[in-house]
Parts: sequence; structure tokens; C-alpha cells
Amino acid sequence: MSDLKAAALEYHMSPRPGKTSVELTKPTSSARDLALAYSPGVAEPVREIADDPALAYKYTNKGNLVAVVSDGTAVLGLGDTGPLASKPVMEGKAVLFKRFAGVDVFDIEVASESPQAFIDTVRRISITFGGINLEDIKAPECFDIERALIEQCDIPVFHDDQHGTAIVTAAGMLNALDIAGKKLEDAKIVCLGAGAAATACMKLLISLGAKLENIYMVDRKGVIHSGRDDLNQYKAAFAHATDQHTLEQAMEGADVFVGLSGPNLLSAENLKRMADNPIVFASSNPDPEIRPELAHATRSDVIMATGRSDYPNQVNNVLCFPFIFRGALDVRATRINEEMKIAAVHAVRELAKLPCPAEVCAAYGLEKLEFGRNYILPKPIDSRLITLVADAVARAAIDSGVATLPYPENYPLQSVDDVFKF
Amino acid sequence: MSDLKAAALEYHMSPRPGKTSVELTKPTSSARDLALAYSPGVAEPVREIADDPALAYKYTNKGNLVAVVSDGTAVLGLGDTGPLASKPVMEGKAVLFKRFAGVDVFDIEVASESPQAFIDTVRRISITFGGINLEDIKAPECFDIERALIEQCDIPVFHDDQHGTAIVTAAGMLNALDIAGKKLEDAKIVCLGAGAAATACMKLLISLGAKLENIYMVDRKGVIHSGRDDLNQYKAAFAHATDQHTLEQAMEGADVFVGLSGPNLLSAENLKRMADNPIVFASSNPDPEIRPELAHATRSDVIMATGRSDYPNQVNNVLCFPFIFRGALDVRATRINEEMKIAAVHAVRELAKLPCPAEVCAAYGLEKLEFGRNYILPKPIDSRLITLVADAVARAAIDSGVATLPYPENYPLQSVDDVFKF
Repeated sequence: MSDLKAAALEYHMSPRPGKTSVELTKPTSSARDLALAYSPGVAEPVREIADDPALAYKYTNKGNLVAVVSDGTAVLGLGDTGPLASKPVMEGKAVLFKRFAGVDVFDIEVASESPQAFIDTVRRISITFGGINLEDIKAPECFDIERALIEQCDIPVFHDDQHGTAIVTAAGMLNALDIAGKKLEDAKIVCLGAGAAATACMKLLISLGAKLENIYMVDRKGVIHSGRDDLNQYKAAFAHATDQHTLEQAMEGADVFVGLSGPNLLSAENLKRMADNPIVFASSNPDPEIRPELAHATRSDVIMATGRSDYPNQVNNVLCFPFIFRGALDVRATRINEEMKIAAVHAVRELAKLPCPAEVCAAYGLEKLEFGRNYILPKPIDSRLITLVADAVARAAIDSGVATLPYPENYPLQSVDDVFKF
Repeated sequence: MSDLKAAALEYHMSPRPGKTSVELTKPTSSARDLALAYSPGVAEPVREIADDPALAYKYTNKGNLVAVVSDGTAVLGLGDTGPLASKPVMEGKAVLFKRFAGVDVFDIEVASESPQAFIDTVRRISITFGGINLEDIKAPECFDIERALIEQCDIPVFHDDQHGTAIVTAAGMLNALDIAGKKLEDAKIVCLGAGAAATACMKLLISLGAKLENIYMVDRKGVIHSGRDDLNQYKAAFAHATDQHTLEQAMEGADVFVGLSGPNLLSAENLKRMADNPIVFASSNPDPEIRPELAHATRSDVIMATGRSDYPNQVNNVLCFPFIFRGALDVRATRINEEMKIAAVHAVRELAKLPCPAEVCAAYGLEKLEFGRNYILPKPIDSRLITLVADAVARAAIDSGVATLPYPENYPLQSVDDVFKF
């Protein structure tokens, strides 16, 4: 057994199984306390909420509670493990939500016989929560599931595998393009992979200014183009007329490569075909589309990001999802819209341009981290993320009209400890 | 606003809304910790569980996690408040589960369009949990819902409003009969109310030896008897041939009155009709079927219990449900069967016969509490409940063949702090 495997299994099982518990936030030592927490006192908030449903946010945990929900059909890179086996991942997500943004999470694994059954199930329990984070659901079902739940629920619904990945990729991409001296509007972009994350990444880049005709999305059969008749509606949205039908052809002169596919699918030969200062986001995890060592040996001018924490420029969703929900919950947004996603992109992106605090550098064994080829994205432990990203998302929600509360009194948050401080 | 109302609302909203939070049980300070909690380390328990589903109990919170689930159709005595308004009650149940038995609870409120939709929803999410506590679901739907979920889930499913009430009522009843010098087998029992709790109470008393022909269940139309043609299957199960068709007639010579109905429905006149040493369980809450003051003024020989904490002999489900789930979870029982319920009855009952610890008496402002007319049930804060009831339930599960683990190493638990001590 590898060291990591042994340590990971030990971590999960000792001193007690799992990674989360439910704790009490109110005193329960006296009989009086219990008479307030339960019968007869509890009847009072029940009556209040029955009269005015919005008071659920005042008298229950709803407003700080997110469901992380999966059907287990696309777990990490492991595929369809089933929902029960996805539980450690969903609990892990709860750990990240709490650790970084003070958000309480119930992990919910759904054994659903169909996408419709999953939708029905999540809709029915959604009143329990202030938000829904969909997780590890395979494409293309995840698109319909997310759209239906956004329509049917009055709380934010966010499929992190799509939008979290897209937001962090876009933030890093904009910074990489700055460094390369290029503009998103002009960039030729090759996206290897056409699943949930790839689709969301390209959609968001288009929202930010990328041109559809400059995007070459590549699936197992090659470039997605308008001459193909085997495309589902989600892939077809990226088709345009081109005579570049293979990955090799698309890579010729490409400014950007985004890999959301599998290990070692980007060859040195294809990297050589790219334009000057090529930008390579090799996000397949744990094994990227091209090893950073090989990429740098092949091209000294490559700007590279991966999904790994042990190389520079990790594309890690934790840079955004805890803070997006934090901001959305704190202004009680009814949804997480494009404006909020774009605000998160810019907040994450701008943070990499600020001087990095000494304690963050030290945690990575570095004297300093300065904006540049090896630092286009902030580090997850940077405590300024909650300050900047939650604030940007809350402001965007207010400005775009989906917030139902004003700008919060405790904003901008200085740390996760500020969450319930007013 | 009453003092209780003001205090209860304040308790629920300050310093943060609600009564529970989700906390982390593992270290998360270092990058290494996070690499174990989430990617890449988390892939290891995922793979293990995909290979062997039972390992979910080893690597996740499943084994200590109970869903408290309601559709909000019968909330406290308030009726159909809807599921959202039931949330404070479900969180309150989480408080009791944690405070008394160390059980983690996710409260889940279900907006279901039908009993079948509720069943489907709970079944699909049930893999998340080690047990399901159904709560505040109206009769007769609750019977079908519970039966279906017991059949369809491989974890314990327990409708506390039925069985928790029945277990504590039966425990107090056996003690009251002892004091009255009577036997359950011979007792004439009048049950005012024919809902979920009443049905379950009478069923359990029959399991314990009461005779169906001695039970007079009374609904809004009078005694349930075999001459009536307006009975659903659940009420019909209690019908027998009798010419006693009114409450007044049934009360004549009754040894036991169990009220699970509404305030002030037992008159002094009807109490006078009962046999010597009448046993009156007036469980309507907060206002009992007869005020204890009136009952004692009417009959000096009455042995009385209510649902209230401010009178002697409170019938309080918290005496059993936390410990029933504790015992069931700790031997990983596949269900909560009749043997386990009966074991709980006797454990609760016997505890009232032991000398009551000084700190428990002191909490009630009493020098001592001794088995007798004013002490037929233990107090909820008696820490011996977890020791005795969880142990009895675990042993009964093992003996009746529904346990899948052996007798736990940490049993009998000395306190709730022992839950994860091995």
C-alpha cells in the first residue's frame, strides 16, 4: 500500500469514521434550555415560520446550510462508482466549505434510478437548505439536472464540477494571457475534452470575450465542427465550420490548450505546434495531459497550470466555490448567475496580482510568490480569498438584482471567523 | 408576547440562526491534511467503498448519522404546518439526539406531493445515513410510509411519534400497574385518540400482554367496535364486539386511561367512573386531557402522568429514541424490531426503580425521587439512560438476529462522552 493510500485511509477512519459531525450551537445544559430547543418552546418559531416562510432564515440553520449532492455517476476521475462510494468526496467537500468559508454542509448521496428521479428528490428536500451544490454527476445528464433544479428551486443551485472549474480556469487564463501579452478575444483555444467541465469552461470564456470560431473543442472523435452529425445539443453549441478536424491540426498556432480529458493526451509534438508563449492548462488529475517536466523541456516559453498542488498554478475549485456560496448566502441570492461567476473570476484573478502574504509563501517553502508565469492563481490557504471573492460575489448579486438582502454588515469578511460576527 | 415565546425566539435566532452546525472531526490545518481529506487522498476510501459497500461505515460518518425526516403534516400539536415550518422541530430533535446519545443528525424537510413521493425521496437518500427517524407525519399516511421504508431500506427506520411514545408510555404504564397492584393482562384500558401514537401505544401494550378485548379505543365518533362500518384498516384492527359505545360507558370500571387526543377531554365525572387506583396518562401537550390539579382533587388514588415537564411522571420520548438509535447503530442493526422496543420498555421502566442520583433530584429541586406514584418514569437528564437503554437495545438486536456487529467494545456506555471511546 502506498504511503498516501495508508495515510488517507487512516485519516478517514481514526479516531472516528468520517470527517464531519453535527454539533449544537445553543446551550443545552439546563431543563430550561431544552424547553426552548424542543417542546414547548420550539412551537414558537414553528408558528412564526408557518406565517412567514422567510423567517426560516431567522430561526433555523437554513441560511448557512448547503447540500452537497451527488448521484455518484462521475466521481473524481474514477467514473461511476455509485452514490455510496462518493460519500467520502461529498464529506470532503463539506470539509472545504466549512474550513474556508464557514458554510455548514449536509452531504447527501442519492441512489436515483434516473435523472428525473434525482431532480425530484433534490427539489423535494431543497427547502431544508440555503443552497445546493451538485457534485460528480456525469455529462450530459448534469446539464439537464442543473437547469431543472435552478428552475424549480428558489435557492442557488450550482454544479461545481462545471462552474467552479470554469471560474478558476478563466481566472488563471486571463492572467496567463496578460503575461503572454495576448487577448482572449484573439486567442485560438483548443479544449481537449467535451464533458461538463470543458463545456462550462468554454462557455465562460465566451462570456468573457473569447470567440466561438476560435475555440476548437475536441472529443474522442476529433474536433467538434459543423460537419459532424454525431453531436448532442451540448456539443453542437460549440461546432463551427472549419477544415481543422484533428487535434494535430487544431494545435497548429494555438495560443491556449485546456485539457479536461485524461493523462498524457498532449504530446510534445502537439505542444511544439502552438504559438509563442503557449498557455497549457493540463487539468486531468492526478495525471495531467502533459507532465510539467516534459512541457518545460519541450518549450521554455510555456505557461503552465495543472490540477496538482505540487506544481505551480494549481487549478483548484476551492479557490472559488466556498466563497461563491458564502457571498450568495449572505445576500440571500435566489440564484448564482453569470454576473456572480464573472465577479468571482476577476476577484480570484486580481488576488494573484497582489503581494502574497509571507505565511502563504512559507507554507509552500518559498520566500515569495510574485505574479508571473509561476503564480497566475492564488493559493487555497490565502485568507484574503474569503474577503475578496465573497465580497465580489455578494456585490454582483446585489447589482444584478438576484440578492434579497442588502450588503451585509459584517462585509468584507476579514476571515472565516467573521462569518457570524455582526 | 409571553416570556416563553420571547425566550424561545431569542434562543433560536441568537447569536446565529438555528441550533446545529456541521463541524470537522479531522485536522485540516496543513496542505497535507487537505490532501488526505479531499483530492488526491479521498480517492482511496472511494475505491475501497466501491469494492465493499460495508466500508462506508469505516470511512464515512454514515454509521453515526441519522436523518430526522418530516413532511410537516402533523407538527407537534399544531397540525399541518408544511415542511419548512417543521424545521425548528427537526433541528430540535437533532439537539436531543446529540445531547443525550452523541448521534449526529441531518434534519431533512421534504416538500412531497404525496406519501409515495415522500417514500421515494427518503429511500433514495437513505444510503447517506445509518438510520432514519420519521417525525411529525400525519396518520394514517405515516403507517404506510413507515412500512414501505422499512421494507425498502437496509437501515433502521423508526417513526418516533408512534414508537417512542408507545415505549415510554408502556414503561410508565407497567410501573403504574405495579403500584396499583394490577396486571396488564387484566386491565381495562381506554385510549382516547386513534392516531399514530395511540395506535402504536395500544399495539405495544398488546405485545406486552394486554388483551385486545379489554382495550377501548375512542375516536371522534366514540368507541371503536366491530359494529362500526366507518373504520380504516388501522382502526379496524382494534375493533371488538361490545355494547360500550361511548367514552362514558367505556370509562366505567376502567383501570387505565391513555389520552393522546386534546386538552380537557377527560372530565372529572369520567375519572370518577374508573376503578380503584386509576391510572391516567393525559399526554396531550401542552394542555393535558385533564389538569393534574383537577384529577387529584377528584380522586386521591389517581396515578397520573402527562406530557409536561413541570408535573411528575412526564411521558417524554427523549427517554428512549436517542438510546434506541444509539444501540441500533452500535451493533449496526438492520431494523428496529419489536424485541428491541420491548427491551427499551423494560430498561426505561427498571431505571425508575433504582435510587435516583442526587444531581438528578437536585435539578428538579427535590431531595430525593423514589419509585412510587410520583416517580414511575426516570428523568431525561439521568445519565444512566444511555448506559441501560442503549445496552438493552443492542443486546436485543443481537439476540433477535438483526445485529450485524457483535456486542460493542465500549459497552455499556458510561456516558455520552464514551460514544467514540474504544
